[in-house]
Amino acid sequence: MPDTALNSVRYDQIRPIKWENDQLHLIDQRLLPSELRYVSYSHVREVTKAITDMVVRGAPAIGITAAYAVVLAARDRIRQSGDNWKQAIQKDLDDLASARPTAVNLRWAVERMRSLIGSINDSLDSDPVSRLVNEAQCIHKSDIEANYCMGELGAALIKSGSSVLTHCNAGALATGGYGTALGVIRSACAADRIQSIYANETRPWLQGSRLTAWELIQEGLAVTLIADSAAAQLMQSGKLQWIIVGADCIAANGDVANKIGTYSLAVLARYHRIRFMVVAPTSTIDLNTESGAGIPIENRPLDEVLACNGQPIAASGADALNPAFDVTPAELVDVIVTEKGVVQSPNAAKITQLFDGL
Amino acid sequence: MPDTALNSVRYDQIRPIKWENDQLHLIDQRLLPSELRYVSYSHVREVTKAITDMVVRGAPAIGITAAYAVVLAARDRIRQSGDNWKQAIQKDLDDLASARPTAVNLRWAVERMRSLIGSINDSLDSDPVSRLVNEAQCIHKSDIEANYCMGELGAALIKSGSSVLTHCNAGALATGGYGTALGVIRSACAADRIQSIYANETRPWLQGSRLTAWELIQEGLAVTLIADSAAAQLMQSGKLQWIIVGADCIAANGDVANKIGTYSLAVLARYHRIRFMVVAPTSTIDLNTESGAGIPIENRPLDEVLACNGQPIAASGADALNPAFDVTPAELVDVIVTEKGVVQSPNAAKITQLFDGL
Repeated sequence: MPDTALNSVRYDQIRPIKWENDQLHLIDQRLLPSELRYVSYSHVREVTKAITDMVVRGAPAIGITAAYAVVLAARDRIRQSGDNWKQAIQKDLDDLASARPTAVNLRWAVERMRSLIGSINDSLDSDPVSRLVNEAQCIHKSDIEANYCMGELGAALIKSGSSVLTHCNAGALATGGYGTALGVIRSACAADRIQSIYANETRPWLQGSRLTAWELIQEGLAVTLIADSAAAQLMQSGKLQWIIVGADCIAANGDVANKIGTYSLAVLARYHRIRFMVVAPTSTIDLNTESGAGIPIENRPLDEVLACNGQPIAASGADALNPAFDVTPAELVDVIVTEKGVVQSPNAAKITQLFDGL
Repeated sequence: MPDTALNSVRYDQIRPIKWENDQLHLIDQRLLPSELRYVSYSHVREVTKAITDMVVRGAPAIGITAAYAVVLAARDRIRQSGDNWKQAIQKDLDDLASARPTAVNLRWAVERMRSLIGSINDSLDSDPVSRLVNEAQCIHKSDIEANYCMGELGAALIKSGSSVLTHCNAGALATGGYGTALGVIRSACAADRIQSIYANETRPWLQGSRLTAWELIQEGLAVTLIADSAAAQLMQSGKLQWIIVGADCIAANGDVANKIGTYSLAVLARYHRIRFMVVAPTSTIDLNTESGAGIPIENRPLDEVLACNGQPIAASGADALNPAFDVTPAELVDVIVTEKGVVQSPNAAKITQLFDGL
């Protein structure tokens, strides 16, 4: 796709996930920003691999993708196994749910689809695939609606003239559309409250430089990229009012797992008295995980650190660590914004309360 | 040069700067780790550009390079201007001194050479160039000796079984040889006190992945690279005892300018109660600069952030900030190691005392 087309995509047209012609279509996020290309999927195994390989990434986007992947799995299993499809599909669902370990939305979506499968009565229900498509589309649509809602709730916390820093990509590309952290930034920009948007480049995968910058530029929003390690100096300079990030998993006590580097920002924000906001739908909160200590942290291939954008950079023979996420303790989080409401200074009691109100 | 040769260089053979056959020879550090190539220089202007373009980098290495560059300048000016050479050379020295604004060793070395030039009596001194060569070689040799000395002093502070994290490259390549921060790590390894060496990759120029890892691998020391933003998680894990870095300029009150990201590490180290060591020769201390607020911070080309290893990475249209250094306030520094002694919890009085003893 030529650059002109790339630059004419508006944020409300950035849809990383589409269900069309009985197929799942994903933007291959590994190719952005140089190429905007959809890849089509008809079988669950391909989608499981696409999630592992980060064709699609971002906890909510992974969840939605998985929901559609369950549709593909059901279609194949009904064809292959007939009446035994509900049994045959279990392995597909397990594989899918473990494609990436940290993002809780993945398991949340698979379990929601598994539960619907369990409730389907084959003798009464003539078209289980359609029911599953409807459920996946419902998950997809609800996610976008949740993002618009969180955008408003989060933006309301931001004073006019504020400058914000975000990390990784928690935008349209990481969700059904609009974004979580970037949704708040979009809504705050629409309300004319934002002076400057800074984005960490977010090594090793460069989600900030490649995805967040691309999204913002689509809609004419200026964005200033910095090396991740320059965030502290920016805070020291007094130019920042908010750090705004998404989440891959929030434990029952409010501890937040998010892209590696988030914890660093949270410590630095507290030191500099800068406010720290986490934006995530309630599907990212895992009440079964008591605290951050229980969140599995995915270690990704070392080549992501030893290379940059596919090119080797490090001295031959060097070892590396590549944890994809880190855990920010709840006490460093000023506010969690969900579609069900805002939790200031999160803790276990307040998170429970949020769910009790649902 | 083939890889086998690259891998057979011992640390005491890593000499980023050589004076041979009346020429200055610099390792082109932009090509490491894939190629070890010396470039030869005969004229001061070429060296000034090499410093600006980071053929050579690291505050002490830049200082030594500048001293030799003054020799080249003198030789040319004596040829061109005869008796007026001492006047004609002043512009060369000014240009050289401003090739990079933050590293104070650059100006320290140029002023030391300028002072020697001022003391030369042309009618009595038949070979001023030789005197200048001797002075540059003295600066060079003293720097290496200082590094060995700091290595011992710093290593003595490190308990057996410690793991350390360094940032950027403060090794042989950043100095006359052996290194400042990496010299301490080398000495501590020799004394069998180090469990693991971690190195930040150090975006945007990747000194950690490219240079520090290369140096350590030469001598068979294992090194584990991390994305800069992963340092906080490593500290949180309890695996680190020391952060050890070099410096580009230390103010009279002990504030330290060093590679962007150093300040971030210092804040994080304090939060995690991990010790923070700065290793630098006294030529890096600028008594004329009262505090860090007075240290000029160089902003480098934005392409260093918008590209990685020469390849564009960011979405087209994104802006960037690229400060090459940041300032760590003295109160976050546990110890400054110099060749004249160790300054614990540095402040203006202790820095003055260090110099009074000289």
